[in-house]
Amino acid sequence: MSDEKQLSLDKLVSLTKRRGFIYPGSEIYGGLAGTWDYGPLGVELKRNIENAWWKRFVHDRSDMFGLDSAILMNAKVWEASGHVKGFTDPMVECFKCKRRFRADHVEGKTCPECGGELGEARSFNLMFRTFIGPVDDSSAQIYLRPENAQGMFVDFKQVLDSLHPKLPFGIAQAGRAFRNEIAPGEFLFRVREFDLMEFEYFIHEKDWEKLFEMWLKEIWAWLDFLGLDRKKIYLHEIPDGERAHYSKRTIDIEYQFPFGMKELCAIAYRTDYDLKSNIEKSGKDLTYFDEETKERFIPHVLEPTFGLDRALLATLVEAYQEEKLEGDETRVVLKLPKTLAPYKVAVFPLLANKPELTKQAEEIYKTLKPHFHTAWDDRGYIVKRYRSQDEIGTPWCITVDFDTLKDDTVTVRDRDTMKQERVKTGGLIQYFQKNILP
Amino acid sequence: MSDEKQLSLDKLVSLTKRRGFIYPGSEIYGGLAGTWDYGPLGVELKRNIENAWWKRFVHDRSDMFGLDSAILMNAKVWEASGHVKGFTDPMVECFKCKRRFRADHVEGKTCPECGGELGEARSFNLMFRTFIGPVDDSSAQIYLRPENAQGMFVDFKQVLDSLHPKLPFGIAQAGRAFRNEIAPGEFLFRVREFDLMEFEYFIHEKDWEKLFEMWLKEIWAWLDFLGLDRKKIYLHEIPDGERAHYSKRTIDIEYQFPFGMKELCAIAYRTDYDLKSNIEKSGKDLTYFDEETKERFIPHVLEPTFGLDRALLATLVEAYQEEKLEGDETRVVLKLPKTLAPYKVAVFPLLANKPELTKQAEEIYKTLKPHFHTAWDDRGYIVKRYRSQDEIGTPWCITVDFDTLKDDTVTVRDRDTMKQERVKTGGLIQYFQKNILP
Repeated sequence: MSDEKQLSLDKLVSLTKRRGFIYPGSEIYGGLAGTWDYGPLGVELKRNIENAWWKRFVHDRSDMFGLDSAILMNAKVWEASGHVKGFTDPMVECFKCKRRFRADHVEGKTCPECGGELGEARSFNLMFRTFIGPVDDSSAQIYLRPENAQGMFVDFKQVLDSLHPKLPFGIAQAGRAFRNEIAPGEFLFRVREFDLMEFEYFIHEKDWEKLFEMWLKEIWAWLDFLGLDRKKIYLHEIPDGERAHYSKRTIDIEYQFPFGMKELCAIAYRTDYDLKSNIEKSGKDLTYFDEETKERFIPHVLEPTFGLDRALLATLVEAYQEEKLEGDETRVVLKLPKTLAPYKVAVFPLLANKPELTKQAEEIYKTLKPHFHTAWDDRGYIVKRYRSQDEIGTPWCITVDFDTLKDDTVTVRDRDTMKQERVKTGGLIQYFQKNILP
Repeated sequence: MSDEKQLSLDKLVSLTKRRGFIYPGSEIYGGLAGTWDYGPLGVELKRNIENAWWKRFVHDRSDMFGLDSAILMNAKVWEASGHVKGFTDPMVECFKCKRRFRADHVEGKTCPECGGELGEARSFNLMFRTFIGPVDDSSAQIYLRPENAQGMFVDFKQVLDSLHPKLPFGIAQAGRAFRNEIAPGEFLFRVREFDLMEFEYFIHEKDWEKLFEMWLKEIWAWLDFLGLDRKKIYLHEIPDGERAHYSKRTIDIEYQFPFGMKELCAIAYRTDYDLKSNIEKSGKDLTYFDEETKERFIPHVLEPTFGLDRALLATLVEAYQEEKLEGDETRVVLKLPKTLAPYKVAVFPLLANKPELTKQAEEIYKTLKPHFHTAWDDRGYIVKRYRSQDEIGTPWCITVDFDTLKDDTVTVRDRDTMKQERVKTGGLIQYFQKNILP
């Protein structure tokens, strides 16, 4: 049995559509560029990643506080943050066909579509605009948030006042953000609507180097949890002069996607820039008072940020395997981390036309379902059902056969090794639980 | 001990802000009407409700499939659904002060702000508009979804093709929606950005009455789970002539909020209107083929829909209690269902200045934390800490005292009864687990 891995993005797009992970957005109406819908399997994978992130970084820690701030914010937030002025990409337009492109994505000075001449690059703001209230003029113009971070800064004082946390502590948020990308593409990678999971970690300035290292370690542990191969990950240390002016250190964590080494997540030391800027623009007091030293000051900030859709895409890319089996057969298998797999278990009666098998299998299915998201399949041959579950990453398949009726054991088949084992039906919940817990 | 309940909305707004449940959106910049941020406690309550809904209606059932479709959809979706034309509220403008109001909320014909004369009512569309792609004209105009339902209709064929479900089955979605309300208000009740949890349940036409009743039962069970008093719930059967033209039966489930009996959730039988209309407008085949009867037809639809923010608001309203204690003391307690409470347990060392107590308490805290979201408090007197946890709805407080060091037991104090019990530290996880599971 030799493994072979030749994953093209097209293959993944096709598999995920066919098996209900990811559909093109608004497809029956011709689609909408840069939007994707998560189908029944995809939404489970996505929720599993997000819930695992929340458990790991919010519940399992004592220094992190959750937040869910509104997507619509007062426009002044984005003036204060610099987004209204500076959240832009350079855009060029073709004189001939009028199509528009990201200047830094176009090679040469001609239109990649029609070969026409391209104009000068100008700045295009990536924030989606809308209008709030029953008035349709620019006075009521607001934006869809292009990042979640500002929510944590704007609510910083509220969290201080209501929870009284001590430095260092973080505010964490997972939620939707929007960017009007000039050229969306590469599947879930560059999209116009996406979920971010990020936190702002507030610290004493003197601790920044030590805590930067702490978070880098935590990020590695998270990437391990997603099952990503460390050899495919590259820490891109952004050099002086290329970082945002306020950042003293930024690392982009890149992953070897099928379309190249691209940013998966990042960590930045943003100094006290954000709180300071919000203090200046809002006129509100966002300082912190240290009970021990009796000092009042503006905390500094470390910002680890994770794209949920990109994490999901990397997880799928890594999990996708094509294995040559005996004969000429190839099996496609998603070796997803067990904790993240959409279904944990699938239950089959060996034969669909034997009511005694179906009855017994149904009972097992009902017993497992409250504990694990469980699939049911009674169509076609057993091997075909195994292949079908392999393709969506279900870690275990249970087959109820005639021996089950005699000795109350079932066949548990492992997705990765394809090995089968007889397990007492009464011990199934424990069997899976001990193998799923991280 | 006599209970007294005099909940004004102001009291709840104040408590939830002070204790980190809900903050006004964009507050340091003067706010943004109709938006609220969920703080560290609120986001836990919100996630607990949403995850419980997902488990109950998606994971625990065999006939439900999850979905997470994009908020941004092709504008044709909203033309087909009738929203572009008809998703409006009647609006009047004051000739004098130019303020605008919902015509059906204004009594008399004068401005409630300045007393000026009001103009004729005209239709105001509640969908937020935005522009997609690097072009700023109406050709690229799209909308923020005002409901989630269309995602389930637009992706209906994709779900059929990838999961092959048999009727009856549902597609469920929980996610953000937006409505540009003319007059937002009543706290979380009428907001411009909110989370909906809804499903479209596809059926044979002949089964609609039976399945409508089945879902009504399920909704009651869900409201019980939220801890809502059935006496405060009113089923508002929408009479003929007041329902949407395509609906054969609609029930608004109303709850006795502090501001009146208002809609909490709803169930509607929408016939085959939505799929039919999407077939006509998209030209795509959204029919269903019944393998058994060999018939091809357009399924009918039942739509139970739940506002997450409204569910959370009702849960808070119901849970809020003021209890007169001995002496003249009053305790404020949120009697939230244990499964939904933000923190499940709080751990205290009896005295903060005794390292041996703190050490033991910390160990218990660390043991419980991976299993339950657990709070820590070592400030002030024990009774003050109890009151503090009561106010945020923590079901149990554990106190580590000098007896703990001798016999390895702790005091577990119950939020609702205020009774205390000695429990072996080794049995704590089980003790709480058996009391939390629904």
